[in-house]
Amino acid sequence: MNTKNNVSLNKKRFIKRNNNGNSSSSNDTKLTPNQNRNNRRNNPAERINRSREPQRKTPVKIIPLGGLNEIGKNFTVIECSNDMFVIDCGLAFPDSEMLGVDIVIPDFTYIEQNAEKLRGVVLTHGHEDHIGGLPYFLKKFNVPVYGTRLTLGLLEGKLREHGLLGSVKLHTVTPRQTVKLGCMAVEFLRVNHSIPDAVGLAMHTPAGIIIHTGDFKVDYTPIEGGPIDLARFTDLGNKGVLALMSDSTNSERPGYTMSERKVGESFQKLFDQAEGKRIIIATFASNIHRIQQIVNNAVKHGRKVAVSGRSMVNVIGKGIELGYLKIPDGILVDIDMVSNYPEDKMCIVTTGSQGEAMSALTRMAMGEHRNVSITPNDFIIISATPIPGNEKFVTRVVNELLKLGADVVYEAMYEVHVSGHACQEEQKLILSITKPKFFIPVHGEFKHLMKHAETAKSLGIDEKNIIIGEIGNIIETDGVDMRISGQATAGKVLVDGLGVGDVGAIVLRDRKHLAQDGIIIAVATINRNEGEILSGPDIVSRGFVYVRESEELMEEARQLLFDELQNCLDNDIYEWNTIKTKMKDHLSDFIYFKTKRSPMILPIIMEIQ
Amino acid sequence: MNTKNNVSLNKKRFIKRNNNGNSSSSNDTKLTPNQNRNNRRNNPAERINRSREPQRKTPVKIIPLGGLNEIGKNFTVIECSNDMFVIDCGLAFPDSEMLGVDIVIPDFTYIEQNAEKLRGVVLTHGHEDHIGGLPYFLKKFNVPVYGTRLTLGLLEGKLREHGLLGSVKLHTVTPRQTVKLGCMAVEFLRVNHSIPDAVGLAMHTPAGIIIHTGDFKVDYTPIEGGPIDLARFTDLGNKGVLALMSDSTNSERPGYTMSERKVGESFQKLFDQAEGKRIIIATFASNIHRIQQIVNNAVKHGRKVAVSGRSMVNVIGKGIELGYLKIPDGILVDIDMVSNYPEDKMCIVTTGSQGEAMSALTRMAMGEHRNVSITPNDFIIISATPIPGNEKFVTRVVNELLKLGADVVYEAMYEVHVSGHACQEEQKLILSITKPKFFIPVHGEFKHLMKHAETAKSLGIDEKNIIIGEIGNIIETDGVDMRISGQATAGKVLVDGLGVGDVGAIVLRDRKHLAQDGIIIAVATINRNEGEILSGPDIVSRGFVYVRESEELMEEARQLLFDELQNCLDNDIYEWNTIKTKMKDHLSDFIYFKTKRSPMILPIIMEIQ
Repeated sequence: MNTKNNVSLNKKRFIKRNNNGNSSSSNDTKLTPNQNRNNRRNNPAERINRSREPQRKTPVKIIPLGGLNEIGKNFTVIECSNDMFVIDCGLAFPDSEMLGVDIVIPDFTYIEQNAEKLRGVVLTHGHEDHIGGLPYFLKKFNVPVYGTRLTLGLLEGKLREHGLLGSVKLHTVTPRQTVKLGCMAVEFLRVNHSIPDAVGLAMHTPAGIIIHTGDFKVDYTPIEGGPIDLARFTDLGNKGVLALMSDSTNSERPGYTMSERKVGESFQKLFDQAEGKRIIIATFASNIHRIQQIVNNAVKHGRKVAVSGRSMVNVIGKGIELGYLKIPDGILVDIDMVSNYPEDKMCIVTTGSQGEAMSALTRMAMGEHRNVSITPNDFIIISATPIPGNEKFVTRVVNELLKLGADVVYEAMYEVHVSGHACQEEQKLILSITKPKFFIPVHGEFKHLMKHAETAKSLGIDEKNIIIGEIGNIIETDGVDMRISGQATAGKVLVDGLGVGDVGAIVLRDRKHLAQDGIIIAVATINRNEGEILSGPDIVSRGFVYVRESEELMEEARQLLFDELQNCLDNDIYEWNTIKTKMKDHLSDFIYFKTKRSPMILPIIMEIQ
Repeated sequence: MNTKNNVSLNKKRFIKRNNNGNSSSSNDTKLTPNQNRNNRRNNPAERINRSREPQRKTPVKIIPLGGLNEIGKNFTVIECSNDMFVIDCGLAFPDSEMLGVDIVIPDFTYIEQNAEKLRGVVLTHGHEDHIGGLPYFLKKFNVPVYGTRLTLGLLEGKLREHGLLGSVKLHTVTPRQTVKLGCMAVEFLRVNHSIPDAVGLAMHTPAGIIIHTGDFKVDYTPIEGGPIDLARFTDLGNKGVLALMSDSTNSERPGYTMSERKVGESFQKLFDQAEGKRIIIATFASNIHRIQQIVNNAVKHGRKVAVSGRSMVNVIGKGIELGYLKIPDGILVDIDMVSNYPEDKMCIVTTGSQGEAMSALTRMAMGEHRNVSITPNDFIIISATPIPGNEKFVTRVVNELLKLGADVVYEAMYEVHVSGHACQEEQKLILSITKPKFFIPVHGEFKHLMKHAETAKSLGIDEKNIIIGEIGNIIETDGVDMRISGQATAGKVLVDGLGVGDVGAIVLRDRKHLAQDGIIIAVATINRNEGEILSGPDIVSRGFVYVRESEELMEEARQLLFDELQNCLDNDIYEWNTIKTKMKDHLSDFIYFKTKRSPMILPIIMEIQ
């Protein structure tokens, strides 16, 4: 490489950076799309540079702190010089090992260590795995948040719950708008997804343009808001994209994801089929376009619409308020009033499409819903596919609804659901038009990232220019190379009730042990001076055996502990830990021999002098 | 209906019954297929009767005590007059609510109540959900067991584990053989399934012929043993089948299930593709035909075969011993010797296709396998689809294997798995050739049974002749009608370690509570006479919070309990339950207020006079 040339061009690059908004000031004034386009068009350095050999520039760090090797808690840092911002801050749902945990959020340690650089948060859309961790984040780092109208609308509800509303600066952006964040500028680009107002990001950094698709699909006929901004993605591709970070969720699926409109066509047929019956449709609360199509069909078929489930009520309210959901007057009726209308003139939209235990549909299925009793006159549509791990819950609900005599349309029957994520051909489309030098598949488990990488390779992207990262990787690029240059603290923080992070490995291990075989507590009061057992040992168990049917076993255990304890005292063993260990080991062996179970054993010795 | 005619025909029917083996003797001599056929051919009553109006006969009861509205613990009673037998006795795996439970077996109460009638157990095949509950059953009811050679071979292993081998009478049957069980005779009919030697049953009862398909598919080109005995099913259909009980597992799937041979073709291609690499294939241990095809391909490609996983070693051993699995000399090598052979000349067959935590494949993925370390030179095939509920476990294993650089073929990639159960077209085939008067879909959840019933209706079976039962239903037929005439005790018995049935609702509720938020134990020793707290209250918690980080909270809690207890004593409240309730309620409120968690709270008061 020609070092001389390198130096001279670096200077020009520096000018370009300044022109393009790279100042060390951290204020967050926004550029209008026009200003931004003009800036770039008028930048001579950029045009010159494109015809020469690529030059090393001020490096930019991409640090995924969530969302890689997992579906959930998306959270990525983009850092350059003294500036950084965060893309999304989502939550994940606990896996089956995380007993009693409510939600999982990303580890914020790296942000804490670099808080002075933080210029803001940019949001791609309003799903829980993208905004659900934000209240916890904003409690620690009160920085401006940039997002589209619906995204911020949904966030407001969360901030209210956490008492943060009013204290956080929310900046509404529109697609093609650009926001300056320190030495970088973020341009928002419309994409299609299963929630309105979703955007991808074009990040104009000193090292080059980095595109993050957000969660996306390509829908040429969306219900509202228009199709994904392929023109601008193409435009950026022609200008030169340094790196693409793209949604990998469906990278195992060949072909295209169908248009949301397809679901409307299915609804049309099913509404015809359901004539004379009450219609109940379960779907994701945030899928406002789906709900719009339900409403449209209800109107067409002369039905009223009632809404059940807290999140459904909230999102529909917000959707109407912000104009994303259009419901003619007189169509919406309160769920409490549902019995006042003829069943064949009613359509109920409900939560519970994942078979969640406390959801409205599950309560209907179990006969526990306050307003809705399922009968053979119900026609129920589950407009969703089970998220991995929820299959059995959904099946249970389907079985119960069928037992009550209802018609139930579920899973692959008819086309009552389409994915919100791009399949392989759409992933190829984005790769083809953006023509990135480097590719970082994101938003997926390892297998999804691998598949997405294969797809990229099949389009001619060099394998060494593809990084399959892990959370915590500091991916650094100077416009010429991209490599993992270090490691940031990253991981899971468990939220249980009000506790954030206080449930760790030891607590979970104990919960697992307790869940498996329960607990036996042995209590005794002794007088150390006299070497005498004053009371007990008493044995109490929970989750071990049904005590009334195991009195003999418990009495044997009690006797065994008494002998063990007396033996210790007789031999002048007064070291609490020694006594406890002896009691524990003895009882543990005895119980295992008798039952082949290993409950937690907890000896407690009270002392009276 | 003509009552006179009725009576006269009933007499003839009675003669037929006697000819056909209806005596009250309970010995279990077997009829050869020929004897049986002759009996029926020479029976004039049967021929006469077929041309007349149907007549009410000695009623037969079909009592499903497992396997309906669930996949698992198949267990059905067939009862007539003073005789009854049981079809299969399987286990089910605990669902996610049954914390700490090992397996689930059927409730045997109905058998206990009618033990004197029990003539034996007939087995359809050797899967866990059909024979896994049998050791528990045979411990209580030592009756003869009838099954094919492999089925009994696999059962022997279980009986040995339970110390029952030798004390149970096992009778090997072959397809088309008939066994007399009291007033009924059971004919075994070859079917195809994902385990060799599977059979369906034609039960010749006083009320008519009842066919039970067992678990089946139609495979015209099976690996061994020949195709399902369609000829005999047709023959019985022509004679007149009173009722059909048919496998509903795949009733939601249109079309046909592919031949097992299809998997062999995929293996052929994948073995070619894997040249130069070590091949590891995970599949169900009991799928001996699958394993045969792996062996065949290994031989063809000059590879040795090693076996990993306890159940795989056991089943392969039994398969070789009984001649169901043919492995040329010198092909099988011990898993401990695997490193002595070049990787590209090795094929490892392993358990773990469901991502089970302790399975061999999972241990390989986690780097914990004693003999096998996964490298980029491994080509791994998961030859199975995840059973609902196991999706996440399988995915985790796939991700870990991919991270280690291995090639992994999983799920729908290539055709490396076919189902063992009939799809809709095969279900139609059986319905069409057996032409049953009554239809009872079995072996499925409610949704599967419903779908199967719809399929039957589409073939012209009258809706009122289809019974979608529940376990415990006593389905009674006299050859003319079939109805649910009563209810038998039925349900789940949970096995945890050595305990059978001692873990019930209360224990599970406690385990769930413990799993959720852990436990807080508060212990105090008091002197009732003096109204004095001698020691404590001490607080111990497990699975609640990490105590070292919550000392303040715990100290506050301790103080609160001390005040509460002292207050009781000061006010002469000595009723233990009252004191405990006060302590519990107070502490519970305090903890919830502070943490929004609800651990189990267990106050223990020791008394010294």
